[in-house]
This record gives sequence, structure tokens and C-alpha cells, in this order.
Amino acid sequence: MSQFGPSTRIGVLGGGQLGRMMIQEAVDLDARVEVMDPSAEAPCRYLTHRFVQGDLCDAAAVEAFGAGLDCLTIEIENVSTEGMEALERRGVRVVPKPAHVRLIQDKGLQKQFFADKGIASAPFVLQDADGDRGALGYPIVQKLRRGGYDGKGVVVLKDASDESYFKGAPCVLEQKVAIAKELSVIVCRRSRDDVKAYEPTECVFDPRGNVVQLIVSPADVSDDVKARSRALATRVVDELDFVGILAVELFLDEAGEILVNEVAPRAHNSGHHTIEANATSQFAQLLRVTLDLPLGSVAPVRDAAAMVNVLGEADAPKGAPHYSGLRDALDTPGVYPHLYGKSSVTPFRKMGHVTVVGDDRAAVVATAKHVLESVGVTCLKK
Amino acid sequence: MSQFGPSTRIGVLGGGQLGRMMIQEAVDLDARVEVMDPSAEAPCRYLTHRFVQGDLCDAAAVEAFGAGLDCLTIEIENVSTEGMEALERRGVRVVPKPAHVRLIQDKGLQKQFFADKGIASAPFVLQDADGDRGALGYPIVQKLRRGGYDGKGVVVLKDASDESYFKGAPCVLEQKVAIAKELSVIVCRRSRDDVKAYEPTECVFDPRGNVVQLIVSPADVSDDVKARSRALATRVVDELDFVGILAVELFLDEAGEILVNEVAPRAHNSGHHTIEANATSQFAQLLRVTLDLPLGSVAPVRDAAAMVNVLGEADAPKGAPHYSGLRDALDTPGVYPHLYGKSSVTPFRKMGHVTVVGDDRAAVVATAKHVLESVGVTCLKK
Repeated sequence: MSQFGPSTRIGVLGGGQLGRMMIQEAVDLDARVEVMDPSAEAPCRYLTHRFVQGDLCDAAAVEAFGAGLDCLTIEIENVSTEGMEALERRGVRVVPKPAHVRLIQDKGLQKQFFADKGIASAPFVLQDADGDRGALGYPIVQKLRRGGYDGKGVVVLKDASDESYFKGAPCVLEQKVAIAKELSVIVCRRSRDDVKAYEPTECVFDPRGNVVQLIVSPADVSDDVKARSRALATRVVDELDFVGILAVELFLDEAGEILVNEVAPRAHNSGHHTIEANATSQFAQLLRVTLDLPLGSVAPVRDAAAMVNVLGEADAPKGAPHYSGLRDALDTPGVYPHLYGKSSVTPFRKMGHVTVVGDDRAAVVATAKHVLESVGVTCLKK
Repeated sequence: MSQFGPSTRIGVLGGGQLGRMMIQEAVDLDARVEVMDPSAEAPCRYLTHRFVQGDLCDAAAVEAFGAGLDCLTIEIENVSTEGMEALERRGVRVVPKPAHVRLIQDKGLQKQFFADKGIASAPFVLQDADGDRGALGYPIVQKLRRGGYDGKGVVVLKDASDESYFKGAPCVLEQKVAIAKELSVIVCRRSRDDVKAYEPTECVFDPRGNVVQLIVSPADVSDDVKARSRALATRVVDELDFVGILAVELFLDEAGEILVNEVAPRAHNSGHHTIEANATSQFAQLLRVTLDLPLGSVAPVRDAAAMVNVLGEADAPKGAPHYSGLRDALDTPGVYPHLYGKSSVTPFRKMGHVTVVGDDRAAVVATAKHVLESVGVTCLKK
């Protein structure tokens, strides 16, 4: 496969914002990107050489979509790994490997993997359904093994009488970590010899929707914590023999220990700032590893960056999005909005993000908090 | 018009690389971009909500394309200004103004405008066809009044016996300037109160094709020359009452005087480095002014940048492009290739560009020269 020019066909499972931002990079290499998504209104719809509407969890549909492609990647992990494997057998380069996606799709298998490899992570038990939840004491975190995303499928149980638990589904119960900070390290890995890890970022969550509210890079932690975070994240990709981009979410606990929370085998919300703040963005890296091209430098090109998600307002009626505050945001130096082209807003839906970059971390964070308050999206219909 | 979201329809006359790079920016504002180009293989073909194949110089076709749009811009100046005017009458916001495009389409009118406004420019005469060429002495530069681009339509006449002149067409004859450097300033202007001029860049030409070979920013000139260059370029946009992006090509002559060579009413080859090297790229600015959004900061975010065009090799047979050297280029920190998605290469055709950024000007230039030697594009067929 020649990696440049439209004779190279790249497929993406999922046509959301992550695929869209990868396509923005693919344009520069003149790569022909083809996308499959269940929604005819997917954000990638008008930016592709070929768009296929279909069920990403249907193995036959995935195989039919990918037959004839040179390479295939994903922007969402809820996809048919059987379909991906069938494409590998047909000679398509598939990034990440289907076995890794299958492992990561199941939070129980993820946790078991960390335990088997001695990778620091919170103590846990697996539970088929509705059994005794008291083995680890309280408080605990209950996570559905499958299908959770953006804080959905996760609940904190304060004590045995807490009735907010998910009933009747296989789940992971974890000891609740006394979290000092939530960090994230995005690691790109093409091969054993071509691995790049970005600076750790720090995540601040919105307690209303349990969605990341503010990402700040670099994290406000010691050099020692930064180094240990990168080392731990890199250890995860090496133990997996991972190929692709792995977002490694970490807890720094109050005792100073770093634990792996969970991982995602794709570009990640905690890496959006790399578009403006780093020599090579996470999306460019995903494209490179998918095409088996050398990874780029992850060096920061700005001293500080912060990222704010643009979420549907809590009371937004479902319908066409109406954005506010963006004109002023564009008039502020160092502020970069990215809208995802979603045709419909719903409460807390990720409709875009805004990155703030600059030379002074405190000023960048202050601007990002202003953006958080002033930029909004709702639907105007009554 | 709300400037965000797909309910805003932007039309672009021309579907080449300049439109393509603007679309890459438009994705971030979720603007719906629609493109008209004579070629079904135009670089923008697969990145638009609507693609119309048609003759850009046909007023009725331009009007039919643009009816119903919120705003319209251009990425090439050889378009029907009558069609643009018809769209203005229909209420479409047209950027730049048709009258400015008409003036700039004719190098004779351009020169006359500079003379009328006292804007420094080389002495010239207009000639209908084939008259006496000796009025200004020799050497002189003969430029066709219409239709020239990328060095085509321009010839240097050494003396009266020089037979290389264009025959039978209206032209401008200019005294040949004793050029010390060729500079360029890109000025963005939304209104009298919202004007931004980038740092002057320095252009190095390839004598074989008379095409820009290397652009370096900042230009290696004194602060005084930089200030005078920006002032002169800004004076041109103010005298025009221009709206849009104007690339002002300048000569610094051997006596230290700065003269306007010519202008282009659109994004320009000499501004491609702004994608990586400046807080806001020229393409983002064009999008902003088209949407009547505030212009962004033009501050450099890298200390030095250089840009190399990727041109079809001199002996390239016409056909599908085959790129070489890009893998190594991607493996070099600070090197950013941009391919334009052209389906066919011909000798000297602009197929892409590569930007080099860094903290040390000399190192950036050295890397750019290496890219110039090592990155190529040809067609492999015999």
C-alpha cells in the first residue's frame, strides 16, 4: 500500500466527531476516507468519499463495508470485532487489533488484564448480576461491563442501602479510590520501536452529567507524578502489545499512588487540545498509525492548553442546535472552537469543544472557565 | 444569518486547494460549504455538502449556483463578476466585492489604480497589442492584462530584439525593478475597524517555472522594511475599501524602496505557512470575513516557518500522482505536508505544499531546502 493519495482507502467504523477530526487530518495526506455509521446524519456524512449507513455491531455489515479497503480504524469501541477479524483475514490492515477492542469493550476483562499484569488499579470484583455487593465494603463504584460511555453505566454506591445500583447486568464493583486528581495519558504506538506518549492532562468533571468539563494540559502535578503517569500508561500499551492510540485514564489518589481507571482504544476527549497545542495531534497520529507511517512528535508547541466540551444545555429540547457565545469566543486570542456538525442537540450531548492555548497556565484556565460559562448550545423551539 | 451550524450556507467559486484548505477550517464552525468548479475531479469534490460542476466565467451559471446561499467567496479570481453582482442583488453576502475582483482581474486596471492613488509601483505603460515596446527602455516586463497566473502570462524582455513577447493581446509593460527581495504581505480586512496584516514573508522563485519555490517567514529584512511593507499593504486595502483577504506582492528594490508588484483578492500561496505558524490561518480568516465574524490574531506561534510547493516533476507524464519522500518528511519534527487531492499530475503543477516550522530560522530554511530536494511527485506510467 502506498500511503499517500486517493488510491489508499481508509475505512472508519463510526462517523462521529472523532472520525471527523481524523478526516480533517486525512485531507492533508490526500487519503480517501470511507465511513460507516448507523446514522444518516453522522458528523462525517459530508466529508467522505463513501458513506455507508449500517449497524457497527453487525459482523456481516462491517465486513461488507470494509472489503477492499487498505486499512480500517475505529472511532468508537462498540463495534463488531468479528467483523474486524474477518477484514484482517481479507488482508485489511486493522488498527487497533480486534482482540484489544474486545478486551476493552468489557470492563471486567480490562480489570482482569490489569490484575494479571500487575498494573496498579483499584481492587475489584466481577459480578454476574444482583449478587451481594458488600465484598469490598463501601463506598464502591459499580460499572456495567458493557456499553457504558461518557459516565453512563457508572454509579457510586455509598452503602448497602443505596438503591441506585444497576440491576440484572454483569458488572464490575470497584473500591472507590480517594481521588486527588483524574489524569489522562494518550499513548500512540505503531510498533515496539515507535511509541509516543503525550504529557499527562488533568480532567475536571461536571458533577451534573459526570462528563469531563475541563481538560488542562499540562496537569498540575509534580514532575515525578508526570513521569510515573507516562510510564504506567506506556506499560499498559506495551503489555497489550497495542497498535493504535490508547487513552489511559488514571487516578492520582490522596496517597500519591497512580492507578489505571480505564482505557479507550481510540482518539479521546482528553486529547482534543493536541490539535492546537502539540506538534502532532492525536488525530494525525491515529491516521499515521493506521497507514503505518512514522508517528510524529508529541512535543507541546504552546505552554498551556485547556479544553471545554460544548454540551447540550440541561433543558435543551431535542432539535436543531443553536449556539451562543461563539462570536465572542472567536474574538478572544488563543480560543479555538470546534463544532461537530451534529444535526440535533439533546441535554448534555457533546456538540463540540473549545480549546484555549497560551503561554500562561492560569490565564488559559481562566479563559477556559469563561468559555464554559459563556458558550452554550440549545434548541430554540418551544 | 447565524454564522454557526449547517443552516448557514457558504458558496465557494473554485474547488481547488485554496477552497479545500478553507473547508478544513469550515468544518470547525460546522458551516455548510458548497462548491462550484469546472472539473468533476476538483480537490474539494468529496468535502462539500453540494458540488456543482460548471463554468465559473458564466454569469448565469454562477448566479444559479449561488441563489439561496447566505454568503459566497472565491478561491480563484477568474470568475464572473457579473454573476457575483447578481448574487449581491439577491441578498447574498459576497466576499470579496465584485468590483475589486474586476479591477484585479485586469493587471492594467490594477496598475492604473496604484498610480491614481500614489501607491508605489514600477513605472508602466498599457498597450493594446503589438505596438512599440520601447517607451520605458529595457529591460521591461510584459504582463498579459488578463488570465495570467503562477508566472504564466509574464515575460521579461531584455531588449528590442527580444522575440519572446506575447503578441496580439492587451498587456502591461513595466520597467523591470532591480529586485533585492520579493516580499508578500497578506492583509485581512472585514471592515475599516477590523484589519489584520501578517508578518511579511520572503519569496524565492524557481527560475525554471517562475513559480514560488520557497516562502520564508519572517522575511530576512530590517524591522523598518517590515513596518513599511505592512503599512504599504494595509494602505492598498484601505484605498480599495477592500473586504476579504488581499495578498499584496511586493518588491524590495536595491535602493531599499518598496513597490507593489501585484495583488490577489484571495488566500495565497505565500500564506500557507499560517496554518501551522500563526494563531489564525489565512483560511480561517477568509472564512471569518466571509461569515462577518471577527478576525483572529495573526500573531506568530512559531519563531520561523518556511513553505515549499510540491510541484509536478518537469518530466512527469500526465496521470495519477505518485509521491516520493513524504514518509521521511513526516518523520522529521516540524515538517507538515499538505497534499491537494489532485487526481492528475503535470509538469510544475502545484500538487501540494510542505510547511516547516521551528524556533531557529536557519534550521527551518535548511530543512525546507532538504524537503525541496527530497519530496517529489510524478506519474509512474511510461
